[in-house]
Amino acid sequence: MEAHEKGFFTEENSVEVVTGRNKNAQDARFKQVMEVITRKLHEAVKEIEPTQDEWLEAIKFLNQTGHLSNEWRQEFILLSDVLGVSMLVDAINNRKPSGASESTVLGPFHVADAPELPMGANICLDQKGEDMVIYGRVTGTDGKPVDNAVIDVWQANDEGFYDVQQQGIQPDFNLRGMFRTGPDGRYWFRAVKPRFYPIPDDGTVGKMLGKLGRHPYRPAHLHFILKAGGYETLTTHIFDPHDPYIDSDAVFGVKESLLADFHKVHDPKRAAELQFASPFWEISYDFVLAPAR
Amino acid sequence: MEAHEKGFFTEENSVEVVTGRNKNAQDARFKQVMEVITRKLHEAVKEIEPTQDEWLEAIKFLNQTGHLSNEWRQEFILLSDVLGVSMLVDAINNRKPSGASESTVLGPFHVADAPELPMGANICLDQKGEDMVIYGRVTGTDGKPVDNAVIDVWQANDEGFYDVQQQGIQPDFNLRGMFRTGPDGRYWFRAVKPRFYPIPDDGTVGKMLGKLGRHPYRPAHLHFILKAGGYETLTTHIFDPHDPYIDSDAVFGVKESLLADFHKVHDPKRAAELQFASPFWEISYDFVLAPAR
Repeated sequence: MEAHEKGFFTEENSVEVVTGRNKNAQDARFKQVMEVITRKLHEAVKEIEPTQDEWLEAIKFLNQTGHLSNEWRQEFILLSDVLGVSMLVDAINNRKPSGASESTVLGPFHVADAPELPMGANICLDQKGEDMVIYGRVTGTDGKPVDNAVIDVWQANDEGFYDVQQQGIQPDFNLRGMFRTGPDGRYWFRAVKPRFYPIPDDGTVGKMLGKLGRHPYRPAHLHFILKAGGYETLTTHIFDPHDPYIDSDAVFGVKESLLADFHKVHDPKRAAELQFASPFWEISYDFVLAPAR
Repeated sequence: MEAHEKGFFTEENSVEVVTGRNKNAQDARFKQVMEVITRKLHEAVKEIEPTQDEWLEAIKFLNQTGHLSNEWRQEFILLSDVLGVSMLVDAINNRKPSGASESTVLGPFHVADAPELPMGANICLDQKGEDMVIYGRVTGTDGKPVDNAVIDVWQANDEGFYDVQQQGIQPDFNLRGMFRTGPDGRYWFRAVKPRFYPIPDDGTVGKMLGKLGRHPYRPAHLHFILKAGGYETLTTHIFDPHDPYIDSDAVFGVKESLLADFHKVHDPKRAAELQFASPFWEISYDFVLAPAR
C-alpha cells in the first residue's frame, strides 16, 4: 500500500492528508474555510521554507500578540489592519453599486450612544483647534435627497486624540454627534480640523511595522456612519488630501473617492456668522447611499 | 493619477499595496517572509470571502488561543501540529539522503537531562504495563556501525501518560533514558508497551478538532533523539502499526518507514532471562544516520 493511500503525511501530499481528515465535519462552511486556510498555510510554509527557529519566532509572535489583547486593546485586530486584511474584508462585504459612496474600516473609536444634535451644532466642546465647517447632501444613487438619514460622526482632535483616549482631558462626547437630515437631504455641522495619529505601536504589531520600515500613522480623517430606511448603512471616513500620510495610511483605509477638499476660508463675515475665528476650514462632501439589498 | 499609482488600496491590488509598503525593510529575509504571508493571507481571504462576523470569530479564536498559551501549555504549537504545519516544517528542515532514517516531530514531552543508563537497562521504574524489549543497530548510510552514538529515548506508559504529566504518580524519569553504543553500533533496552493518548483537547484547538469531526489521539510510539559525531542528529519516533489511530495521528507524525514490528513473544526461557513475565513484546528497529552536512 502506498503511504499516500494509508494517509501518511509527506511534504508533497501535506494538504490532501490534513484536509482529508475533515470528511466528518458537520458544518460545511467551517470545513470549507479550514480547507482554504490549511491549503494557503501550507503553500506559505513551502514557499518560505522556515527554519525551526523562524517557526518558533512565529509561534512566540502569535502568543505575545494574544497576551496583549484584552477588553481594551485588540492587537490581533491591529495585525489584521496593518496587513490590509481588515480593509479586504470590508471591501468584500461592501461592494457598492456604481455611483454609491465607498466604505472604509470602522476603527476602534466608535461610541454607540453619541448625542443627537440640531443641524449646525458644533461638536467641538472645548474650543481647541482650528475651526471647521462640514456640509453637503445625502442622496440615493438615483440622485434623490434622503430624508431622515441619521449621520453619526466622530473624529480625533487637533492633537490626534479621540475623547475616549483622553478621558478627564477632553469633555465626554467631544467631537462626536448624530445629525438627522430633512426632506432636502442636506446636512451641516461645525467641528475642528483633525490631525493624523499613530495606531498603538508599543506592542508586537508596532515592532513588526518597525522591522518592515513602516510608520504607524493614519492620515487626518472624520468618521461617518450613515443610516436611512430603504438604504444600505454606510460606514466610511473622509480624508484630508494634504495630510503628510495620505499615501501611506498604516491601515490602508484611504480611497480616492474619500478625499475631501479641506478648504481654508479667509472671510471674516462668514466666520462671524459661524461664530468662528478667521480664517477657518471648510469641507463640502456629498454622500450617496446604495439601495437596501 | 490612478488610485493604484497613489498606492490606495483596492480589492484587486491589495497584495501589491500592502507589500509595497515594505520597501525600506532592513532585514531582507523578514521582508520576504512577510511578502509571502501577506500574499497567502489575502489569497485566503479572497477565496473564503468571510463575513464581518466570521472575521471577528477568527480574531476571537486567535485571542483565546494566545490566552491559553503559557510556560506550561503552548496552544499555538498545538494549532501548528494539528494543521500539519509542524510536520511540514520538520520535513523541510530534515530532507534526508536516500537510505537514512526519517525524522518526525519532537513533541512537548522531551526532558533534557534524562540519566545515561547501561545497555539493557529497564527504563520502566514502576513495574506497570506489559514488558517490552527494544533492540537494533545504529549505522551510517554507508552501512557501517556507528560507535559512541547517544540514544535518548522517552515514551508514554501503558495508560498513555508521560512521567512529567503524572508527577507524584510516576517516578521521576520513568520511561526515559540515554544509551551509548559501542563499536558494533548495537543497542538494547527494556521498557513497557506504550499506549495511544490524546493531545490536550480542552482548549480552542480541541474545540476546532471537534467541529472538524476529528479525534485528538496520537497512536502509541516511542520517541528517539540520536546524536553521534560526524552524523546529523535524528529526532524521530517508532510507531505501533497495530494501533487503532495509526492511520489518523492527530499531529500527522506517522511515516511508513517509522512503523516498527511490535511482536508478541511466548517464550518462558527468554522471558526469564529478561526478568519479564511471559508473554512479552519485542521490537527490532535499526536506525540509519545521515552524514553531517
